[in-house]
Amino acid sequence: MIQVAVVGATGYTGVELVRLLARHPQVVVTAVTSRQYEGQRLDMVFPSLRGFCDLTCEELTPEELGQRAQLVFTALPHKTAMNFVPGLLRAGCRVVDLSADYRLRDQAVYEAWYQSHSSPQLLDEAVYGLPELYREQIRPARLVANPGCYPTSVALALAPLLRAGLIDPASLIIDSKSGASGAGRSAKTASLFCEVNEGFKAYAVANHRHTPEIEQTLSQLAGCAVLVNFTPHLLPVNRGILSTCYAQRCGTVDEAGLRRVVADFYQDEPFIRLCPAGDWPNTAYVQGSNHVDIGLALDPRTGRVILVSAIDNLVKGAAGQAVQNMNLMLGFEETAGLDLVPLFP
Amino acid sequence: MIQVAVVGATGYTGVELVRLLARHPQVVVTAVTSRQYEGQRLDMVFPSLRGFCDLTCEELTPEELGQRAQLVFTALPHKTAMNFVPGLLRAGCRVVDLSADYRLRDQAVYEAWYQSHSSPQLLDEAVYGLPELYREQIRPARLVANPGCYPTSVALALAPLLRAGLIDPASLIIDSKSGASGAGRSAKTASLFCEVNEGFKAYAVANHRHTPEIEQTLSQLAGCAVLVNFTPHLLPVNRGILSTCYAQRCGTVDEAGLRRVVADFYQDEPFIRLCPAGDWPNTAYVQGSNHVDIGLALDPRTGRVILVSAIDNLVKGAAGQAVQNMNLMLGFEETAGLDLVPLFP
Amino acid sequence: MIQVAVVGATGYTGVELVRLLARHPQVVVTAVTSRQYEGQRLDMVFPSLRGFCDLTCEELTPEELGQRAQLVFTALPHKTAMNFVPGLLRAGCRVVDLSADYRLRDQAVYEAWYQSHSSPQLLDEAVYGLPELYREQIRPARLVANPGCYPTSVALALAPLLRAGLIDPASLIIDSKSGASGAGRSAKTASLFCEVNEGFKAYAVANHRHTPEIEQTLSQLAGCAVLVNFTPHLLPVNRGILSTCYAQRCGTVDEAGLRRVVADFYQDEPFIRLCPAGDWPNTAYVQGSNHVDIGLALDPRTGRVILVSAIDNLVKGAAGQAVQNMNLMLGFEETAGLDLVPLFP
Amino acid sequence: MIQVAVVGATGYTGVELVRLLARHPQVVVTAVTSRQYEGQRLDMVFPSLRGFCDLTCEELTPEELGQRAQLVFTALPHKTAMNFVPGLLRAGCRVVDLSADYRLRDQAVYEAWYQSHSSPQLLDEAVYGLPELYREQIRPARLVANPGCYPTSVALALAPLLRAGLIDPASLIIDSKSGASGAGRSAKTASLFCEVNEGFKAYAVANHRHTPEIEQTLSQLAGCAVLVNFTPHLLPVNRGILSTCYAQRCGTVDEAGLRRVVADFYQDEPFIRLCPAGDWPNTAYVQGSNHVDIGLALDPRTGRVILVSAIDNLVKGAAGQAVQNMNLMLGFEETAGLDLVPLFP
Repeated sequence: MIQVAVVGATGYTGVELVRLLARHPQVVVTAVTSRQYEGQRLDMVFPSLRGFCDLTCEELTPEELGQRAQLVFTALPHKTAMNFVPGLLRAGCRVVDLSADYRLRDQAVYEAWYQSHSSPQLLDEAVYGLPELYREQIRPARLVANPGCYPTSVALALAPLLRAGLIDPASLIIDSKSGASGAGRSAKTASLFCEVNEGFKAYAVANHRHTPEIEQTLSQLAGCAVLVNFTPHLLPVNRGILSTCYAQRCGTVDEAGLRRVVADFYQDEPFIRLCPAGDWPNTAYVQGSNHVDIGLALDPRTGRVILVSAIDNLVKGAAGQAVQNMNLMLGFEETAGLDLVPLFP
Repeated sequence: MIQVAVVGATGYTGVELVRLLARHPQVVVTAVTSRQYEGQRLDMVFPSLRGFCDLTCEELTPEELGQRAQLVFTALPHKTAMNFVPGLLRAGCRVVDLSADYRLRDQAVYEAWYQSHSSPQLLDEAVYGLPELYREQIRPARLVANPGCYPTSVALALAPLLRAGLIDPASLIIDSKSGASGAGRSAKTASLFCEVNEGFKAYAVANHRHTPEIEQTLSQLAGCAVLVNFTPHLLPVNRGILSTCYAQRCGTVDEAGLRRVVADFYQDEPFIRLCPAGDWPNTAYVQGSNHVDIGLALDPRTGRVILVSAIDNLVKGAAGQAVQNMNLMLGFEETAGLDLVPLFP
Repeated sequence: MIQVAVVGATGYTGVELVRLLARHPQVVVTAVTSRQYEGQRLDMVFPSLRGFCDLTCEELTPEELGQRAQLVFTALPHKTAMNFVPGLLRAGCRVVDLSADYRLRDQAVYEAWYQSHSSPQLLDEAVYGLPELYREQIRPARLVANPGCYPTSVALALAPLLRAGLIDPASLIIDSKSGASGAGRSAKTASLFCEVNEGFKAYAVANHRHTPEIEQTLSQLAGCAVLVNFTPHLLPVNRGILSTCYAQRCGTVDEAGLRRVVADFYQDEPFIRLCPAGDWPNTAYVQGSNHVDIGLALDPRTGRVILVSAIDNLVKGAAGQAVQNMNLMLGFEETAGLDLVPLFP
Repeated sequence: MIQVAVVGATGYTGVELVRLLARHPQVVVTAVTSRQYEGQRLDMVFPSLRGFCDLTCEELTPEELGQRAQLVFTALPHKTAMNFVPGLLRAGCRVVDLSADYRLRDQAVYEAWYQSHSSPQLLDEAVYGLPELYREQIRPARLVANPGCYPTSVALALAPLLRAGLIDPASLIIDSKSGASGAGRSAKTASLFCEVNEGFKAYAVANHRHTPEIEQTLSQLAGCAVLVNFTPHLLPVNRGILSTCYAQRCGTVDEAGLRRVVADFYQDEPFIRLCPAGDWPNTAYVQGSNHVDIGLALDPRTGRVILVSAIDNLVKGAAGQAVQNMNLMLGFEETAGLDLVPLFP
């Protein structure tokens, strides 16, 4: 059993990591850290874990973690993460970082959307942990930057047709909707039950920080600089992201042809499911699992392609993808610990 | 007090009409009809109405309704409506029809998206009941076609900039999300609580029947034939539609200038509220009221304008707008019976 | 128009007061106060109010309020309220206090369940503002203690049979369920959307602070000291309280007879609705209104009576009842401003 | 791998059985039946299962099932079940029946609450499948009657103190709340999203059919005939039952002592979790898992014990318990296929 640790275990991503790792056949969680809940048992913070995790939240230095774990998941806010990860690497750990701090290759872009970077020397080394696109780079990586939830849902929806040159990279419009767990577990008025329930809104229109991350991946796929319109919305559900993507078709391939390109692109992927024609993803059908459901239509009236993807933001959008990355890094079966049937209803 | 009737009172639009009319200072509801619940008191079907409506559901002919009411709201499914409305007109009633049957001016378009029309002679006479655009035509109308919920939210979001020529009519992409009451009250598996709750999906992608209705209004505003991409989604909330609309800007007017155009366009409208810059509509903030909240941004990176509108689909998207139309038709204050403060939370 | 003010306007009770008062025909809100949002327009905090309230949140002393309003609603946390209310009275205001601070007649009981009381001299003067039971005392009152949400739902369910001696006061078990707005609008982890949604729990079992308030009213009704078991639960809905009350029947009156006693007791009450036999209250049917729905059954197998009541915790359980009390105090029609049809769905 | 089949696979219990069995290490599902969806792939009915089950819904006779499976789960409505199960037994299958048809030992009681029984000869043979109470009888059983969801939550809450004689069997009041999946997947108006969402109600007060099933188990535990008051309520959540049980304490054992009795009773049970003092079950903490969380308090003021239990109605309340029974019947590890960490949030 390989020893792993979760830094920042008392957010929603943290508890989801512990949920997944508790049943993983080849790893054991040896430490969970939390500043806020230091000294409390994790299963008092999350009684769902009672019987599955008897660890107590600690505050640990990178050095201490280095003695307890070979691989560390950092589920910290951005900025906090970049001050912690270098120490972990120095302590000999491999790291899957779930923050935004190592996702962007270009320091200037990072600093334009976030703040100045305290460990820019790692930006080149960090591997963007989207296995379906970067599997081979992930295997040997010391530091994997686990993708954002929205960018995961968008990149996987658009990758096949964009790389095949079948949609116009200048035409991309992305309308995404996320469940409330995406906003995290900190006590903010805007995240209160009564503020979210029975409502629906757009937010951060034309300026959400996931935009450059989306553009970085899409640019690489398209082979040219891509700018997109990305509009996130807040859904009154716990889990799930659905992204509806609009693109102008290039050329004359029909819907069946486009569908075939997507199917071929993902034919050996264990977590991608392509919906039959006329059938559309629903976040409810991926709840609790690492799957990505993708639907596609071509509107012959306008020549636009509509691609819709659904993921569980806490699994494929965060903790599940992190475990998938760990599996690749440690040479395990890629699906180990991720054989989760979606929970419906 | 003017006598009015509600035909099809046991759907969600019907009960909402009765809710609004029960407090209207100048009308009295004299009949409510329902095939399914004939003989039952309406307040046994909807106990929320107990104390506000003591009527019993009846099955009435147009002639009988003609003796009981001067104005009739028909809240029937399309196809059923067009077989009922002509009789009401012959019986001397004025009609606000909440179905889709008289919304499209072009019989061929109607028949392409729905089925053959049994009273096409009325298509010319029927007035499209969107007061903010067609107020003066509504006043004298004998038959008002109450707009669809999605088309209302879209037309009001796009009207000012489209009429002003500030956005490209060929570039319109509309991503709409509706609460579950929009699917009606018939007992279908897909509408069950457990099928809708904690999920989110697109449906009828590239072929929803509200598309031609949206295009009809937008074409008139743009002065040219407009085709759009319209994608509806199902929200796990009772009420609310939020439409996120994307359009390429024409010319160089900046965001403040665009905002001014919208503000001027709606300056005397009692039900339109423009959100301040950086503030975005939330369906929760219009719940139970006839208001339309509109937000706007210009993305300088892509030159696209993003317009977001929120309505309560059962009020401004159906029953409230029907009452607003009635007020115009009967010469009442346009806001009579509609002084409803949104219910939050 | 009488001038009124709302102290603590940015909680859920505060915004609901403003919603109701904005449409009240005989009063005008002249001031809204908030420490946290001082200097901000109330309709920026609650965009639902846009167009209905153009006031800015202020921090005002009792003296300043005394110059702006004849009657003040204090929607402050307990303890804060008792330090503010005496000044308001000195400034000549009449007060409807929505906190717990003046509800209990017995200072010792208050101090056992809360903390020491800073203005105990007002406990005798304060009138418990449950109009259905204490209407005549409320009319002349200078200080009305607006009842708690749970106690309102319980007292009105049990009052008729308890006063008639038809149920055993020693046998009362009360199982209540409240929507999340009852927990207020402060930013606590336990109130986050993801902590409440799709869950259900009991809390404060056998020690909730509304217990002595419930017992005070029931004791008065029964004419003897009553102890109850009261168990509150948290419902994943915005609004609504449903209380299921169990009592051993005294004597041999059958279900129809018990129902008749309740019907007679409430026969002239504008806000009480008794469900027909076999029909049960649903919080959805009172949403947004000041109504109380009551259902009743006698289980002949066990001899127990089950009484179920439903209210909207923010209306009859807080702001609506406060307006009802104000109407009595100011000599208005008791239902003024409260002609609200429940919003369903 | 043992071959099993699911009869009635397209209800919520059916899909949950398939979800659990798909990952069970020692069985393979060889047939799924459905009258309504005959000929359709199960993963078109439930896209959540895509990739986990490639079976097509069939209509099969008991004889045909006997050739395909050694053990059959019947997830049929009551009455339908009792006409199908005898044939399965004749065909040599062992059966876990999830209907109510074989739960009651006394034919007269069954017929008083349901209808006349077509295979009463099996009532003696059938074993009530609550492993924590009847484990040894279940192992060799040919026919196991899987308990109802409410009765499971109630029996497990009350068993320890009732068997120990520490609570008065004449005093039991049970207030239960269930998620909407408990009402099944048939298309009824009362189960529509908009009828359930944002509401809460009691139903079947004093006459729910689970009452005699509850009383049968409690009577056996108490050693005397027990009558209870049982009030079910409908929660606007997908999954979960929370039962709040009230009982008069016998004797003078204090809360810690009572807690110890419960802890001892369940000390070796893999699925029972006792909450620490002051901590209470939440249905959210057992979502998707086979666990039962139990909380307890003694109210010293009234001498009543309050016991609260939470289960996932589709897992421990139906499909999970059925798998647990199968594990016992087939000599597997009792927890096989049930190592499910609850999904939170």
